[in-house]
Amino acid sequence: MTEIAKGLEGVLFTESKLTFINGSEGILTHLGIPIQEWAENSTFEELSLALLDAKLPSAAELAAFDAELKANRAVPDALLDVIRAMPRGVHPMQALRTAASYLGLLDPQSEDTSEAARRAISVRMIAQFATIIAAINRAQEGQDIVAPRMDLNHAGNFLYMLTGKEPTPEQSRLFDIALVLHADHGMNASTFTAIATASTLSDMYSCVTSAIGALKGPLHGGANEAVMDMLDEVGTPDKAEAYITDKLDHKVKIMGVGHRVYKYFDPRSRVLRDYAEHVANKEGKSNYYQILETIEKIVVDRMGAKGIYPNVDFYSGTVYSDLGIRKEYFTPIFALARISGWCASVIEYTRDNRLLRPDAVYTGAKDAHYVPMKDRQ
Amino acid sequence: MTEIAKGLEGVLFTESKLTFINGSEGILTHLGIPIQEWAENSTFEELSLALLDAKLPSAAELAAFDAELKANRAVPDALLDVIRAMPRGVHPMQALRTAASYLGLLDPQSEDTSEAARRAISVRMIAQFATIIAAINRAQEGQDIVAPRMDLNHAGNFLYMLTGKEPTPEQSRLFDIALVLHADHGMNASTFTAIATASTLSDMYSCVTSAIGALKGPLHGGANEAVMDMLDEVGTPDKAEAYITDKLDHKVKIMGVGHRVYKYFDPRSRVLRDYAEHVANKEGKSNYYQILETIEKIVVDRMGAKGIYPNVDFYSGTVYSDLGIRKEYFTPIFALARISGWCASVIEYTRDNRLLRPDAVYTGAKDAHYVPMKDRQ
Ligand SMILES: CC(C)(COP(=O)(O)OP(=O)(O)OC[C@H]1O[C@@H](n2cnc3c(N)ncnc32)[C@H](O)[C@@H]1OP(=O)(O)O)[C@@H](O)C(=O)NCCC(=O)NCCS
Ligand SMILES: CC(C)(COP(=O)(O)OP(=O)(O)OC[C@H]1O[C@@H](n2cnc3c(N)ncnc32)[C@H](O)[C@@H]1OP(=O)(O)O)[C@@H](O)C(=O)NCCC(=O)NCCS
Repeated sequence: MTEIAKGLEGVLFTESKLTFINGSEGILTHLGIPIQEWAENSTFEELSLALLDAKLPSAAELAAFDAELKANRAVPDALLDVIRAMPRGVHPMQALRTAASYLGLLDPQSEDTSEAARRAISVRMIAQFATIIAAINRAQEGQDIVAPRMDLNHAGNFLYMLTGKEPTPEQSRLFDIALVLHADHGMNASTFTAIATASTLSDMYSCVTSAIGALKGPLHGGANEAVMDMLDEVGTPDKAEAYITDKLDHKVKIMGVGHRVYKYFDPRSRVLRDYAEHVANKEGKSNYYQILETIEKIVVDRMGAKGIYPNVDFYSGTVYSDLGIRKEYFTPIFALARISGWCASVIEYTRDNRLLRPDAVYTGAKDAHYVPMKDRQ
Repeated sequence: MTEIAKGLEGVLFTESKLTFINGSEGILTHLGIPIQEWAENSTFEELSLALLDAKLPSAAELAAFDAELKANRAVPDALLDVIRAMPRGVHPMQALRTAASYLGLLDPQSEDTSEAARRAISVRMIAQFATIIAAINRAQEGQDIVAPRMDLNHAGNFLYMLTGKEPTPEQSRLFDIALVLHADHGMNASTFTAIATASTLSDMYSCVTSAIGALKGPLHGGANEAVMDMLDEVGTPDKAEAYITDKLDHKVKIMGVGHRVYKYFDPRSRVLRDYAEHVANKEGKSNYYQILETIEKIVVDRMGAKGIYPNVDFYSGTVYSDLGIRKEYFTPIFALARISGWCASVIEYTRDNRLLRPDAVYTGAKDAHYVPMKDRQ
């Protein structure tokens, strides 16, 4: 029998200098630096630049990048009109996919696939994603779109545009950490889809639009919203054990646990859990946190031997909830962060491009012939 | 050294019953039936249905499918407004990507990822792509959008909506053959990108939007337009030899030749060449045809031993040119045909889904630490 690499598990298709994951020990590094150090010391702006250039920036480089991001926060009015005209009640990821694609129509540089153009477009998209996602939220809620503020950092400005209220420094910092944790993660399905698109030498907007579509699925970025649905379904902590036991007994997948690469705790989920614990110690355990604690315990007990542990999406939703964000926007926020990883990975891949074109094992009919309609039963 | 499957060449990642390619002998079959037989006897409607259901339809099934396609030719006015509002001069594939994504916002079923919904959405998209692509062309040209006609088949109605003139039966038939030839081609880069998106269990509109982005690149669907650019650059047949020799000497890739799987004549290019010859015999050899003849001869002589032969894109552009279609629309027309393969492949893959998540060889820094800004040079 021919060997099939189902899901391309373990298939190495390129080299990368950006991200390293040791799944059995739960280690994640960017440029060799552990994710915990990034979360503790860095910002989304800095990590984005570090990924784009595959090196830690100097102070001057970071300041220039930051200024460039700020200068690009505004999006064309024509795009805001499109966002306002979208029907109410659409999935925000469908709206984001459409808006990102439309942005390409408005960018005179969009057909330029040189590395310099890819990078310039990346910087603009990193900046503009915040404005676009916040605008979609406001328009869908029937509220006025909030213009960006230049005195806030990327994370703080996003929360401001989303809610119309200036966040506290703690809120900005917490959200910045969440963005840092989600900025890149190797050859995950959405980054891989961006690369597959790039491999035909297609343009940046096509790559990013593809990636948004892939991130949207519940097996990938959509899982953080699904975790929240689960918490709401469970309702109260006392019902968590029966709920999760029943699911596991019936072999139903639990959202927010399991991972293709991690067979141990996802280090990003540890950072977020520490935060959740910190809040719990200060303000008492929230309903959500108690449910998550119970689920984590049962999953690790029953499934840990099989390598099923909480992943980044397990706790991220509660963090966003604490920030007053509706669950429909959890996946767009994932995109807000992962845009950096998508762009950096596309730029890296196209530097030594090869068309992605795998194959399937053919299991259909052989040596058949076209049958004229009158001879078919 | 770790083995890297660059471009995923030869990597088998799933099973499929739809399409078989023998690259060394230049054989292509759908459901086991050679592409030549499909081109000769079938229609785009029939092949699309055969791919969706992985079987030759009965007369009643085909009639029902045809009626369903016709009933879905109209697109929502809101989408036509979006198409009209797009800036002039955009790449039609960027416009198509955006319109396909927008269509998802208007479809109340778009979030349904059941197989029945995926199939229903597929049928609608197959029908609507014709209307959308024609509308983009008209709007970009500043002309009125032409409403579909129900008395024409899919190919004929598309040409009618594109040009505003009813095509001759010969023109419809020729275009129908071109659609049949392009409807599916195994795990090509755009179908693969659609599947990568689907593998997260994302929705149909996301899958198709991703595929459009991948098809757009010059190494894939964009090649047919690039061939035309080349023919225009060469200008006259007497310059073809010097032009192509110079490119090959400088290791510049010739568009419309070479293929990941075919290492011999692409059978689709043979069908199209036969047509081009037929026209040449009747009406004399066109400029384009004479240039292509010369290029083909040199490529096969010099590169044939290396497995570089004309592919489907080599002759398709001249066919579309003969039909009066501008070269900017060659790749959208590829999408008009390949939508059937994308949809059928996504439906087949998600029936036994697994997340696509390969890996990269990490070649970056190891054991690094975050350096405070003041300590960086
Ligand atoms: C992420 C994910 C898609 C990776 O999947 P994968 O590598 O393709 O693994 P598989 O789906 O093949 O699962 C392997 C085994 O683990 C089990 N498993 C995997 N994820 C599970 C989950 N979330 N809950 C319960 N069991 C799970 C499977 O049932 C399967 O068991 P089996 O061998 O008895 O059939 C998968 O873990 C999942 O669906 N998780 C939930 C969604 C999620 O949180 N995604 C976000 C990831 S950051
Ligand atoms: C289709 C295509 C991307 C497949 O490429 P691939 O399997 O990745 O093959 P590679 O690009 O690695 O090429 C392999 C060798 O053939 C050569 N080659 C491939 N396509 C070539 C072309 N169109 N013209 C000249 N040489 C070509 C390469 O230069 C390379 O030579 P090398 O080994 O000396 O470096 C490639 O043939 C191509 O770019 N063709 C032109 C675009 C086109 O027509 N695409 C439509 C396909 S339907």
